[in-house]
Amino acid sequence: MKPVCLVLGAGAGIGGQVGKRFALGGYHSVLCRRSDKEGLDRLVTEIHDAGGEATGFQFNAVDPGSIEKCVAETEANIGPIKVVVFNLGAQVGDHDLLDTSYKVFERCWQMATFALFRVASAALPLMVERGEGALLVTSATAAVRGNAGQHAHAAAMGGRRMLCQTLNAEFSKKGVHVAHLLMDSAVDAPDTLGKILGPERFKEFRETHGMEHDGIIVPSEVANTYYHIAHQHRSSWTHEMDFRSFSDTPWWNHG
Amino acid sequence: MKPVCLVLGAGAGIGGQVGKRFALGGYHSVLCRRSDKEGLDRLVTEIHDAGGEATGFQFNAVDPGSIEKCVAETEANIGPIKVVVFNLGAQVGDHDLLDTSYKVFERCWQMATFALFRVASAALPLMVERGEGALLVTSATAAVRGNAGQHAHAAAMGGRRMLCQTLNAEFSKKGVHVAHLLMDSAVDAPDTLGKILGPERFKEFRETHGMEHDGIIVPSEVANTYYHIAHQHRSSWTHEMDFRSFSDTPWWNHG
Amino acid sequence: MKPVCLVLGAGAGIGGQVGKRFALGGYHSVLCRRSDKEGLDRLVTEIHDAGGEATGFQFNAVDPGSIEKCVAETEANIGPIKVVVFNLGAQVGDHDLLDTSYKVFERCWQMATFALFRVASAALPLMVERGEGALLVTSATAAVRGNAGQHAHAAAMGGRRMLCQTLNAEFSKKGVHVAHLLMDSAVDAPDTLGKILGPERFKEFRETHGMEHDGIIVPSEVANTYYHIAHQHRSSWTHEMDFRSFSDTPWWNHG
Amino acid sequence: MKPVCLVLGAGAGIGGQVGKRFALGGYHSVLCRRSDKEGLDRLVTEIHDAGGEATGFQFNAVDPGSIEKCVAETEANIGPIKVVVFNLGAQVGDHDLLDTSYKVFERCWQMATFALFRVASAALPLMVERGEGALLVTSATAAVRGNAGQHAHAAAMGGRRMLCQTLNAEFSKKGVHVAHLLMDSAVDAPDTLGKILGPERFKEFRETHGMEHDGIIVPSEVANTYYHIAHQHRSSWTHEMDFRSFSDTPWWNHG
Repeated sequence: MKPVCLVLGAGAGIGGQVGKRFALGGYHSVLCRRSDKEGLDRLVTEIHDAGGEATGFQFNAVDPGSIEKCVAETEANIGPIKVVVFNLGAQVGDHDLLDTSYKVFERCWQMATFALFRVASAALPLMVERGEGALLVTSATAAVRGNAGQHAHAAAMGGRRMLCQTLNAEFSKKGVHVAHLLMDSAVDAPDTLGKILGPERFKEFRETHGMEHDGIIVPSEVANTYYHIAHQHRSSWTHEMDFRSFSDTPWWNHG
Repeated sequence: MKPVCLVLGAGAGIGGQVGKRFALGGYHSVLCRRSDKEGLDRLVTEIHDAGGEATGFQFNAVDPGSIEKCVAETEANIGPIKVVVFNLGAQVGDHDLLDTSYKVFERCWQMATFALFRVASAALPLMVERGEGALLVTSATAAVRGNAGQHAHAAAMGGRRMLCQTLNAEFSKKGVHVAHLLMDSAVDAPDTLGKILGPERFKEFRETHGMEHDGIIVPSEVANTYYHIAHQHRSSWTHEMDFRSFSDTPWWNHG
Repeated sequence: MKPVCLVLGAGAGIGGQVGKRFALGGYHSVLCRRSDKEGLDRLVTEIHDAGGEATGFQFNAVDPGSIEKCVAETEANIGPIKVVVFNLGAQVGDHDLLDTSYKVFERCWQMATFALFRVASAALPLMVERGEGALLVTSATAAVRGNAGQHAHAAAMGGRRMLCQTLNAEFSKKGVHVAHLLMDSAVDAPDTLGKILGPERFKEFRETHGMEHDGIIVPSEVANTYYHIAHQHRSSWTHEMDFRSFSDTPWWNHG
Repeated sequence: MKPVCLVLGAGAGIGGQVGKRFALGGYHSVLCRRSDKEGLDRLVTEIHDAGGEATGFQFNAVDPGSIEKCVAETEANIGPIKVVVFNLGAQVGDHDLLDTSYKVFERCWQMATFALFRVASAALPLMVERGEGALLVTSATAAVRGNAGQHAHAAAMGGRRMLCQTLNAEFSKKGVHVAHLLMDSAVDAPDTLGKILGPERFKEFRETHGMEHDGIIVPSEVANTYYHIAHQHRSSWTHEMDFRSFSDTPWWNHG
């Protein structure tokens, strides 16, 4: 029975590509996403066609009990979860304070912070019992600086980062590797960047920044580093690292 | 009509002393707390006896609409809110992940992060209209590092800190001073430290660390810096600063 | 005999104004600078005219033994040094790597890092003997982020900041308050900003950003906070804080 | 002609192992160290025996012109430098301020900060001409927090970190990947940790922390991550990451 890599937020960007990479490395990838059943099925098929193992689950991670049920069913029916990739985003665009509703503020926290707490509560004790495991958390610049208009997103991501530190403080000694992976460039992902920009501007952005320009994070490339980090020797674990296109300005520099 | 200093979390520690300090400086202090009606009345009386103005409100800040109502009533009946001191804590002690319930995790966020978002949404637009104001946010070490057992507290405080940055990014230019004031030592506060330690250990802690030892942050002293920061010239505003007893080890140093 | 406030880098900007503020508060201000003897004399005269005490020293702080001699002579002839204000800058403008000579790189370190180490070595042990004292260190954004072209300045300032932390770790418990005060906006200082911009651009910059715009840090205003920090109660010391014009963008935000 | 990986500080710890790893990956490793000619020869022989290419240089990097000459000779006689691994340490143990001489303070800066500036000045322009290259900088916890007794080391490492940021700001866009790799645990290195502890305590430390305990960073393991980072796709470069044994406490947590 193959070890499982459970991906929450397995869209066409980082989540899906990381799922592919772990399947290639001998894992059974369990791919979870809220929408686009077709895209999810295609991803599973691609992995199968390449000789790998994968299962798709479609649910809204914000629904009470949904993540918990997915963890339990995966353990019961598919295999032991060795790696969790937490890839739920909570980017809602830039909005002034008065245009940020209580509902949106809470929803961002539910996706970016609380869902991480829930999956950690469900999966990490199982990893501790087995003496090994990894929790890889995709994060964003908003976890380390709060830009204008990012009230809901930054508050949720700042919480996510501190939670990664408390999880690491408790679980590292017990053999579970927690890593906070901070994306500091736009990611070439149709589900997120594509939706924020709209099809036309996304196409233009890709043509001017992506492709041979390498100005957008290429999910299949960053997936290689996720895989590397999950397999670091336990004498030399990384807890936090940033990712950025070579042509981009780091969040702390000004152009 | 005096300008108002609205204090959320006006207990016997920092909140109450800051309320006293601003009353001394010519503000009408509006003091809000959840419990201990007697203590609240005593604080108001002390301010009156010293020739100052103060009003006490008792409510649970987590209750929907409570903060919003308090802001509206204060503006309608007492005076224009010039300074908000956000002093709600969310320290629940150290607990392992499995001993941290979903309910506790959410409650910490409601107090430490969401309540700040709510009071900012209610009060900052009024300050912008008047072209001046300050939001002073008491914070804790957990906002910048997640220690073992601090899952709920650190996640909430990390969100608080990023929210202070996004509020500053939007409102500083509009004349509202947002300051994140990080307490990095225990505070000599019977309502919080006293409750966590219990009466006997609190007494012992004060005798060995506080008093002439000055090993605990003295609320009446730190209140002077709150007052100073709220009155910095707008060419030279401070957004973030730490506070620590001289005899304490900073959060980033090891003993 | 009045306590002494020793200011290294006492030009017409922050250093000089801080010297004035401490003289007003009952200190004998010892003002040290490298150039502009006339400006130094004028500053001393202004303090005398206002009823305060001040002495001016002119020397190049980079010269071996210069700072050490100044500390010794001050202690012997003027009074006990209670506060050191370290205000030497090392901003040399933006230069590409190949336009940054070894000599410039070393000179920045000598001014921004090594000179601080020297004055700390000379003065802090004296403060420890007397059980009290403060070292206030003016710093810059380059201490926390390395922008393009800032090779020499950022390397020196990054060293300065870490040195402030090691000094605090050793001396705080012994009664010496070390504070790292980070200027994150341009400062209205003819000796530094004025020289970098040239007289015409400096005049224009002041007219568009300074004066009633308050878009440049006003040295006489920031001096009030220096004075406040030096007199915080030892239960509640601040080690690090930032200063920024209300209309400026923080270093971590992007416009 | 193979591309060159130039290692400054190629002792028996991280430097040597990284040299081996890059040789294994098809590089000609140029290994530089100050002392232990025998150890250097052994390392070169081991690489040769494994079918790889390597050359050893023995010099004191602090000597004026030494690094510059090494870069020039390597380019002239061995091959184009594609990767520089800067692995010079400057740990001198914990010393109080008065036990830290001016000479030691300056020497730490020469090794930890200035030598990096020198090798960058010599090698990075060559990489820019070729449109590719990487500068991997081994760093230490002292780069981000100044502990008691670390005056010389922390000041030098704080400068190193900021310099990495300014180098990245100028050279990333030109195709040169600069990475700051922060070791936050003791490293199993006889040349450094072994010398600080002495043979007996080092042996004991290894037996209680290292070996099957994995409580010390294993150089050959961390070398794999150096290799991975040097080969990240340029759309997804990492600038900063930490390394720590699973059983160790992160620098920001308290035990």
